[in-house]
Amino acid sequence: MLATVLHSPGNIICEEVSEPKIEKPTDAIIKLSASCVCGSDLWPYRGLQPVNAPQHMGHEYCGVVVEVGSEVKTVGPGQFVVGSFVISDNTCPHCRYGFQSSCEHREFMTGAQAPFARIPLADGTLVATETMPSDDLIPSLLAASDVLGTGWYAADAARVKPGCTAVVVGDGAVGLMGVLSAKQLGAERIIAMSRHKARQELALEYGATDIVTERGDAGVAKVKELTGGVGADSVLECVGTQESMMQAINSARPGGSIGYVGVPHGVELDGQMLFFQQKNLLGGPAPVRRFLPHLIDLIMARKINPGKVFDLEVPFTDVAEGYRAMDERRAIKALLRV
Amino acid sequence: MLATVLHSPGNIICEEVSEPKIEKPTDAIIKLSASCVCGSDLWPYRGLQPVNAPQHMGHEYCGVVVEVGSEVKTVGPGQFVVGSFVISDNTCPHCRYGFQSSCEHREFMTGAQAPFARIPLADGTLVATETMPSDDLIPSLLAASDVLGTGWYAADAARVKPGCTAVVVGDGAVGLMGVLSAKQLGAERIIAMSRHKARQELALEYGATDIVTERGDAGVAKVKELTGGVGADSVLECVGTQESMMQAINSARPGGSIGYVGVPHGVELDGQMLFFQQKNLLGGPAPVRRFLPHLIDLIMARKINPGKVFDLEVPFTDVAEGYRAMDERRAIKALLRV
Repeated sequence: MLATVLHSPGNIICEEVSEPKIEKPTDAIIKLSASCVCGSDLWPYRGLQPVNAPQHMGHEYCGVVVEVGSEVKTVGPGQFVVGSFVISDNTCPHCRYGFQSSCEHREFMTGAQAPFARIPLADGTLVATETMPSDDLIPSLLAASDVLGTGWYAADAARVKPGCTAVVVGDGAVGLMGVLSAKQLGAERIIAMSRHKARQELALEYGATDIVTERGDAGVAKVKELTGGVGADSVLECVGTQESMMQAINSARPGGSIGYVGVPHGVELDGQMLFFQQKNLLGGPAPVRRFLPHLIDLIMARKINPGKVFDLEVPFTDVAEGYRAMDERRAIKALLRV
Repeated sequence: MLATVLHSPGNIICEEVSEPKIEKPTDAIIKLSASCVCGSDLWPYRGLQPVNAPQHMGHEYCGVVVEVGSEVKTVGPGQFVVGSFVISDNTCPHCRYGFQSSCEHREFMTGAQAPFARIPLADGTLVATETMPSDDLIPSLLAASDVLGTGWYAADAARVKPGCTAVVVGDGAVGLMGVLSAKQLGAERIIAMSRHKARQELALEYGATDIVTERGDAGVAKVKELTGGVGADSVLECVGTQESMMQAINSARPGGSIGYVGVPHGVELDGQMLFFQQKNLLGGPAPVRRFLPHLIDLIMARKINPGKVFDLEVPFTDVAEGYRAMDERRAIKALLRV
């Protein structure tokens, strides 16, 4: 089959690889309904993470089960499934605590930019839909696998509650999903920090009430102005740089909460600064599995439309254009037709 | 009157100073029932914080109101009061959010190692007891002003809940109060990290179920061993060094919470480390005012005995011995008779 392989920074190729097979009795093989490019795929693509050997790319997926290992009990051939980008057994103490992304048997999914994929620990990782979804729901179900689940976790970690004021730092796909999630969780005011017209519009459609175009200290000053000098109850950090992290921390009120889901690159936090800021911090890879059943319900009932975050569709063989468009910020998120 | 003044590191003197007077209509003057030395007083005493000018020391206090300014409404002469070491108006948005230690009009109390003290923003800062406490309760009420309130905040920030497992890093007065607080908040298992016999005993008396004498990685390994490899739900960090902070973070389970109340000195936290640890962090100067009414109730009803943390009593004029004994760890906490 054809699959995408990153050979070196900037050099992403669609090439022939062997089809995945059941390797362990807890595996499942799925036929993907669609695939996509993640913002985090851009770190190695841009050379900001080392590429020591050719990498099979892709960790977001949904599709139909074609085969399962002998120990798989909860999903079977013919079922439509969505899974987290983090493989988990969903039975260990960390999973039962709701942190499946720190599962004792955690693996990070890879190789999902392909027509078929092997999903380890299928029982713990996959969630089946009750019925076969119609085609137009595929982008939204695909989004649930990572960006939506991650935006939802950012809102959950930032303790968004009905009536609260939330700020979203970052207008990438995850940030936009953060806006959608904050709205679903009842935030009354959602301040999206964005300077890109198309992303602002989608943020407003997803529930943002205010747009702040300023960044850094000027952005924080604007948030303070909009919140009567107080700061926000909840801040979703969806970038991962020192500037965005400080913007998030400084935008929250004392006792407020920051949920940070942008993988930090070069971020250092001074202990005494954090102490006197007196704000809750929780981040990490999203425990998407915790939220999947609820997210799938919302999507199947057409209550949310996260799939709209895909503003570019390319045939699978044009994967390089998908990466390029996202790298150049011409696209928010690229869907790959498999 | 006589008051303690720190002239330079190690040079703490009891000397004649002018008596405090009402300066603003929101002030109160109290006659202290007792005074004490705080662990944080040792930072400048040890030269780890600059002493640029002679400093009137002391920020923990309780006593009888002798005079109030014209705008003070909730306390009056003759009433026994306890106040937080952080002065707050208790009406601003941060106070109403429960974070009085980030009050818009915050001041840090000083000059309370003296027979009389001026308390700014008396209405927002002081809580009166319903009846005059008997003498033996004075040490406990004095403790509520800072160390007990701070230990309680550590447990609250670490989200101690009924049935949880809590770890307390640090066996100073605040750490021991953290043990007491975790017990009161329902922790089923309380692991106190201490290598000092007398402190271990007091920790056990306050509710610790396990003592870990190892530190650093060995201490973390011991906590992991005691928690079936999982880590603790809640960790109270009551020291403030890089080592203690990392010990606290590493002792918590993924999704667990660290409440850190030791003022960080030289602590730097790597963003990516925090991200993948995936743990809740909340610290800062304790909003003691939030907890004071409840703490006073517990003390007046003799349900807790935080005053036992004072294992040295010296006459006020012997203040230097109080500091010395704490500096040399001969005493957990020194009470000064005024």
